[in-house]
Amino acid sequence: MIIAIKQGVPEEKIRLFAANLEKQGVQVHFSEGVSQTVLGLVGDTADIDADALSAHHLVEKVIRVQEPYKRANRKVRPDDTSVSIAGRDGAVHRIGGGFFGVIAGPCSVETQEQIVSIAQAVKKAGAGFLRGGAFKPRTSPYSFHGLGAKGLDLLLEAKKATGLPIVTELMDMQRLDLFNDVDVIQVGARNMQNFSMLKELGRCKKPILLKRGYAATFTELLMAAEYIMAGGNNDVILCERGIRTFETYTRNTLDISAIPALKRQSHLPVIVDPSHAAGLSWMVPALSKAAVAAGADGVIVEVHDNPEKALCDGEQSITPAAFAELMKTLEKYTELEGKRLA
Amino acid sequence: MIIAIKQGVPEEKIRLFAANLEKQGVQVHFSEGVSQTVLGLVGDTADIDADALSAHHLVEKVIRVQEPYKRANRKVRPDDTSVSIAGRDGAVHRIGGGFFGVIAGPCSVETQEQIVSIAQAVKKAGAGFLRGGAFKPRTSPYSFHGLGAKGLDLLLEAKKATGLPIVTELMDMQRLDLFNDVDVIQVGARNMQNFSMLKELGRCKKPILLKRGYAATFTELLMAAEYIMAGGNNDVILCERGIRTFETYTRNTLDISAIPALKRQSHLPVIVDPSHAAGLSWMVPALSKAAVAAGADGVIVEVHDNPEKALCDGEQSITPAAFAELMKTLEKYTELEGKRLA
Amino acid sequence: MIIAIKQGVPEEKIRLFAANLEKQGVQVHFSEGVSQTVLGLVGDTADIDADALSAHHLVEKVIRVQEPYKRANRKVRPDDTSVSIAGRDGAVHRIGGGFFGVIAGPCSVETQEQIVSIAQAVKKAGAGFLRGGAFKPRTSPYSFHGLGAKGLDLLLEAKKATGLPIVTELMDMQRLDLFNDVDVIQVGARNMQNFSMLKELGRCKKPILLKRGYAATFTELLMAAEYIMAGGNNDVILCERGIRTFETYTRNTLDISAIPALKRQSHLPVIVDPSHAAGLSWMVPALSKAAVAAGADGVIVEVHDNPEKALCDGEQSITPAAFAELMKTLEKYTELEGKRLA
Amino acid sequence: MIIAIKQGVPEEKIRLFAANLEKQGVQVHFSEGVSQTVLGLVGDTADIDADALSAHHLVEKVIRVQEPYKRANRKVRPDDTSVSIAGRDGAVHRIGGGFFGVIAGPCSVETQEQIVSIAQAVKKAGAGFLRGGAFKPRTSPYSFHGLGAKGLDLLLEAKKATGLPIVTELMDMQRLDLFNDVDVIQVGARNMQNFSMLKELGRCKKPILLKRGYAATFTELLMAAEYIMAGGNNDVILCERGIRTFETYTRNTLDISAIPALKRQSHLPVIVDPSHAAGLSWMVPALSKAAVAAGADGVIVEVHDNPEKALCDGEQSITPAAFAELMKTLEKYTELEGKRLA
Repeated sequence: MIIAIKQGVPEEKIRLFAANLEKQGVQVHFSEGVSQTVLGLVGDTADIDADALSAHHLVEKVIRVQEPYKRANRKVRPDDTSVSIAGRDGAVHRIGGGFFGVIAGPCSVETQEQIVSIAQAVKKAGAGFLRGGAFKPRTSPYSFHGLGAKGLDLLLEAKKATGLPIVTELMDMQRLDLFNDVDVIQVGARNMQNFSMLKELGRCKKPILLKRGYAATFTELLMAAEYIMAGGNNDVILCERGIRTFETYTRNTLDISAIPALKRQSHLPVIVDPSHAAGLSWMVPALSKAAVAAGADGVIVEVHDNPEKALCDGEQSITPAAFAELMKTLEKYTELEGKRLA
Repeated sequence: MIIAIKQGVPEEKIRLFAANLEKQGVQVHFSEGVSQTVLGLVGDTADIDADALSAHHLVEKVIRVQEPYKRANRKVRPDDTSVSIAGRDGAVHRIGGGFFGVIAGPCSVETQEQIVSIAQAVKKAGAGFLRGGAFKPRTSPYSFHGLGAKGLDLLLEAKKATGLPIVTELMDMQRLDLFNDVDVIQVGARNMQNFSMLKELGRCKKPILLKRGYAATFTELLMAAEYIMAGGNNDVILCERGIRTFETYTRNTLDISAIPALKRQSHLPVIVDPSHAAGLSWMVPALSKAAVAAGADGVIVEVHDNPEKALCDGEQSITPAAFAELMKTLEKYTELEGKRLA
Repeated sequence: MIIAIKQGVPEEKIRLFAANLEKQGVQVHFSEGVSQTVLGLVGDTADIDADALSAHHLVEKVIRVQEPYKRANRKVRPDDTSVSIAGRDGAVHRIGGGFFGVIAGPCSVETQEQIVSIAQAVKKAGAGFLRGGAFKPRTSPYSFHGLGAKGLDLLLEAKKATGLPIVTELMDMQRLDLFNDVDVIQVGARNMQNFSMLKELGRCKKPILLKRGYAATFTELLMAAEYIMAGGNNDVILCERGIRTFETYTRNTLDISAIPALKRQSHLPVIVDPSHAAGLSWMVPALSKAAVAAGADGVIVEVHDNPEKALCDGEQSITPAAFAELMKTLEKYTELEGKRLA
Repeated sequence: MIIAIKQGVPEEKIRLFAANLEKQGVQVHFSEGVSQTVLGLVGDTADIDADALSAHHLVEKVIRVQEPYKRANRKVRPDDTSVSIAGRDGAVHRIGGGFFGVIAGPCSVETQEQIVSIAQAVKKAGAGFLRGGAFKPRTSPYSFHGLGAKGLDLLLEAKKATGLPIVTELMDMQRLDLFNDVDVIQVGARNMQNFSMLKELGRCKKPILLKRGYAATFTELLMAAEYIMAGGNNDVILCERGIRTFETYTRNTLDISAIPALKRQSHLPVIVDPSHAAGLSWMVPALSKAAVAAGADGVIVEVHDNPEKALCDGEQSITPAAFAELMKTLEKYTELEGKRLA
C-alpha cells in the first residue's frame, strides 16, 4: 500500500503518522521528494482500511498495490482449481483444470415431464450438469417466481432419471435445508454482495457457482469468492454473465475479458453464461464459442423445449436441437484449447 | 403494451396469436400497415410476461407503454406520500409531503460515548433522525463489520438520550427480531434486489428506507418498492445514493435527475445520500444543497466526531461542526422550496 | 508519479532503470520494502509517458499523483477565472468569478423572425447570451443539419436587434472564418477530443465553450481545455451536459458532482446544460436550480417559441414564458449563493 | 414508427394530428384501445424526426421499429460486403465475405528501420495489412503526437519494401491530400461522430476503417457508416475496439457481442482491435481468438519490436515473435469458422 502525503506537511508530523501506522503491524518506508513525501507500507496490509486512511488530514491519496483477496489469489495457489462433482451416473463431472463443464437446462422448472425430457436431451447431447430454477429472482412481485420446493423435487426426479448433477439457485438462507441433495448451489448476480449469505455458504460443503453482479468489478467478484473461501469452502466457480452498460441492443454486455483477467488473478474456474449475457437466443452459439476461445472453463446455457411458451426468459433459451448442434461445435473448440468436455 | 409483428407473417397466424393473447385477459387492437402489423394490448398488462412474448417466433419487438408498478405509481395516488415517525421526544418527524427530513449520524456505531455525543450534536443542529450502522456490509470479509446486536443497543441508548428516531440497516432476515425498537429499517444498495428480504419487509409495520442499487434503473427501484408495498407496507422512502459510471474521481455518480424523475413517476418520498454518492466529505454540502434544489424530500448524511479515526468510511464523513453549518444553509434552501425541515 | 517495481527484481536492475529515468529530467526516490520496491518520481513528470513506463518489464504499476494538466490547474492559478464578453448593448457579460451567466436560445436557428423574437424574449427575461445552432451535429445524415452560413447571418441579425453576445457551435475548422462575429465558439460534446480542432482554437482570440464528451472523465475534459490553453487562449468555459450511463429514462445522466469536482481542480468557470442532460423539458427547472446550488457559474438552456414544431430537439426546449419563470427562480438561488446574474 | 398518444385525448385532435403526419409522406394506421390510442406510421419514416414528435403535447412515447440506416442495413443488401485492396505485392487483400483480414503494426511510426522491420516481420507471419500511426490522437497536448507527414512517408517506404497495403489514421480533413497513397483510411474512435469528416470521406474513393466510439451504441456506429455510404463510398469496415464501462482492470471493455449484433444488422465487415480494447498485451491472444470464434472478419493488432521503448501505447503491443505465434493459432480458428486468412 502506498500513501502520498500532502505537500508542505512538516516532517515530524509525517514521522508521527508513520509511527502510528507501524503500530498496526506494518513497516513503513519513506520516499521523500522535493515537493512530496510518499510512504510505502510493507507487510500484511489486507487488514488496513484504505478508506479510513484516505480521510486522514495529512493524506492526499492511498493506492493499493497488493490485492485485497488472499485465498482466491493465484499467487497463493498457482495451479488451477478443478471442482469435481460425482454424478448419480457414476461419472465424475469436473469444471476447471483442463475440464470444460457444460451446464444446461431451462430457466425455470415447470413440470416433471418438461424437466426430465430436457435433462435427457441435454445429457444425450453431452452436457455434464443440469440447471433449472426452482426459486426465481424476478424484477416484478407479480411475475412467476418458480415452483419453489416442488421445483427442487422435480429437479431431483430429473437427476434420478439421468444421473446428471444439478445446479440451482438459492435465494435466501432460510431455505438452505431444502438444498441437501442439490449438487452445486448457485448465487445469483443480485446476491453477489449478499454478504450474510456468502458467509453461511462458506460453512457449507457444496460447490458454489458464484455469478458476477451486473455492476461488480473483478476485484469485487473475487472478494465475494473470498467471503466463501474464508469460511473454509474452496469450491467456488466464478461466472461471467454480462455487465450493465449503455448498450441496450443486448440485455447486458458480455465482458469476455473477464475470463483471462480472472484466471490471471485467481486459480478458481471461470465459466460464462451466454444466455443471460445477451438475452438473445440466436447469439448463444457465437458467445459460447468465444468463451471457449478466451479460455473459459465452462458455460451455463438455457435450453427449453418450447422457448415461446417458457414461463420466464424464453427470449434467451435455445431448443434441445440447437443445443445438440452447439455441443458439436464446442467439442471442436475445446479440443483446439486442449480441454476436455466434462 | 405494443407488439410489432415481423414482416411477411400471414394474417391468419396473427389472428390466432392475438386470440391466444386475449385468453390472458387483455384486449388486442390491430394496426395493419403495408409492411408491418402492430398489435396494441389494452387492459391489465402488468401480469403479461414481455420476455416470453419477445421470444415468440412471430414477434419482432415488444414495447411496454404502461409502467409495471401499480401501488408505487403516482397515477394510482396523485398526492405525495408523507412518512411520519413519532420520536421519543414527543415530536413527530416526517419525510415527504412538504417535510424535508434530515437523517444524520456515523457510518458505524463504535462506542456509547461516540454515538450519544454525535446524536446530541446532530439533534442540536436540527437533524430529525439518527442514523448509525450496527451491521455493516463490507466488500472484504477481513474488514470491520459493525458491532452487531451490541451496536443496536447503543443506538437505543442514543435514542433514549435524545429522543431521535433511529434509522439502521438490516442485512439479513434472521436478525429482524432484533430490530423491534428501530424506527426506520434501511435496505442497503446491495440488497435492493434481495427479493426474499423485500417480501418479508412488506409484512413488517415499520417504514423502510430503500436505497437504489448502484446499477439499478428507476423502474427497478420502483419495482423493489412495489415488492414491499405489495405485502401491505406503504411506508417506503426511496433513496438515491449514486450510481456506478466510468468516472472514478467520485466513488459513485450522484444521479440528481433521479429526484424529479422518481417524484414524477411515484408518490413516494425521495431522499439523497450525498455522503455515499461522492465518497468525499468536502462535496457533501454542495450535493446536499443541489438535492434540495432538485426537489428532494430529505438527505441522509454521515457525521463523525473524528472522521480520521472512523472505523469505516471516514473519507466521506463530515464533523458535527460542519454539519451544523450545513443545517443553516439547508434551512435557507428548503425555505426557498417551500418545505419545512422536519 | 509513483512506480511500483515487480517483486524479486535485483537491486542493480532497479538502480539502472532509475538512472535512465533521471536522464528524462526527474529525480527518483527509493522506498525499499521487504517484498517490494517503490520509486517516487519528483519534478516535472507531465512529459513522462505513463503508458510506456507501464509496459516496462520491471514495472508492476504506475500511479500518477500529479495532475497531467498545468494551465487549467487551480494549483497554478488559485483565483477563479472570469470570462468577459462585451455585448453590442454596451454591457459586459461575464461567466465565472461570482458572475452567473445564462445562455438561452433555440437548438437550431430556423427563420429571422424566430431567432429575433426568441432573442428579445430571453433578453427581456434576463439572459446574458443568445445561443442558436447554425451547424448542427445530427446522428443521421438524413436529418436537418442547420441553416449553415445563413443561420450565422440570422444570429447576427438577432445580435444587432438585442445586443446580446452570441454563442454557437463550430463543427469543422474549414468554417472558422465564418465565425468572425461570433462571440463565444462552442465545441460540442462529440468534438471534445477532436484534438486538431482544439489546437487551432488555442490560436483563436475568442472564448471557447467546451462541452464535456458524454463519456469523458473530468481529467479528459481538463486535458481538452489544456489543449486550447496551451495555444495561448485562456478563455475556456467548461460545460457539464450529462454523461452516458445505463439509465435510459433521461437521455443522459447529469453529473452534478462535476461542478464541485471541476471547480476544485481548475480555476475555469463551469456551466451546466440541463436541456441536453435530461432531454426532457419539464426537468430543466429542477436541474437548473440544482446547478446553481452545486456551485455552477452558469447554465445554457434551450428555449423555443413552439417546441412542438422545433426542427430539432423540441422535446428538451422550454417556452419563453417558462424561461421567464425560471429566471425569477434562478435569481433567488444565485442570491443565496452570493452570485450575480450576468 | 409507433406513436402512443396520451390518455384522454379527444378523437378529433388525434385525427388532425394524423392528417398532419400524412402530409410528411407516411401512412398512419390507428389502434384505438379503451384507454389508449396507438398510431402506426408506415412508409419511409427515416426522415421523420422522432425527437420533435416526442415533444408534441398529444404524444406520450415514440418508438422506432425500423432501423434509421438504409445503405448499411442488411435488409437492403443481404450478402456480406467484402472489401478488397490490391497490394503492391500483386496479391488482393480482402476483409469480409469469408476472408479474415489481419492488420498489424506499431502504434506509432518511429523510424524507417523500425517500420520496415516490423512490416517485414508481420508480413512473414502472415498479416495482410500494415498499420502504423503518423498522426496520433493523444489525451495530452504535451505527449508525442506522431511524426506527421514524415511518418506517412516512412509507411510508404514500408509498403514499397513489403507490398503490404497500409492502414493509417486521418485526424483532420485538411491533411486528406497527404493520404493519396494510403490504402485504407482509419477514422479513430474519438472522431466516429465527427460528422464533417464522415461526409467528406463519403466522397473519397478509399476504404474506410471506422472505429466504434468508446461510448457509441451499435446504431450510432451504423449511422456513422451511413454518413460515409450516403456520400457514395460503400467500402466501410466496422471496428469494435472496446467500450467504456465501470471496470478499470482493462482500459476498455471489449464488447464481443458487437460482432454478431453488427453482422446481423448490417452487411458490412466487422473487425476487432484487441490491443486497444484491453490495453494489456498479454490479453491480445485470448481476445483475438474470441473475435474469430464470435464471427469477426478480421483483427487489427499492435506489434512493436521493443514494446518497452515504444513512444506510445507500449503496454498493449506484442512482439513480432508473439505475433507469429498468434497467427499460427488464428489459422486454426479461422479454419474452424470456414474463413480464409487474407
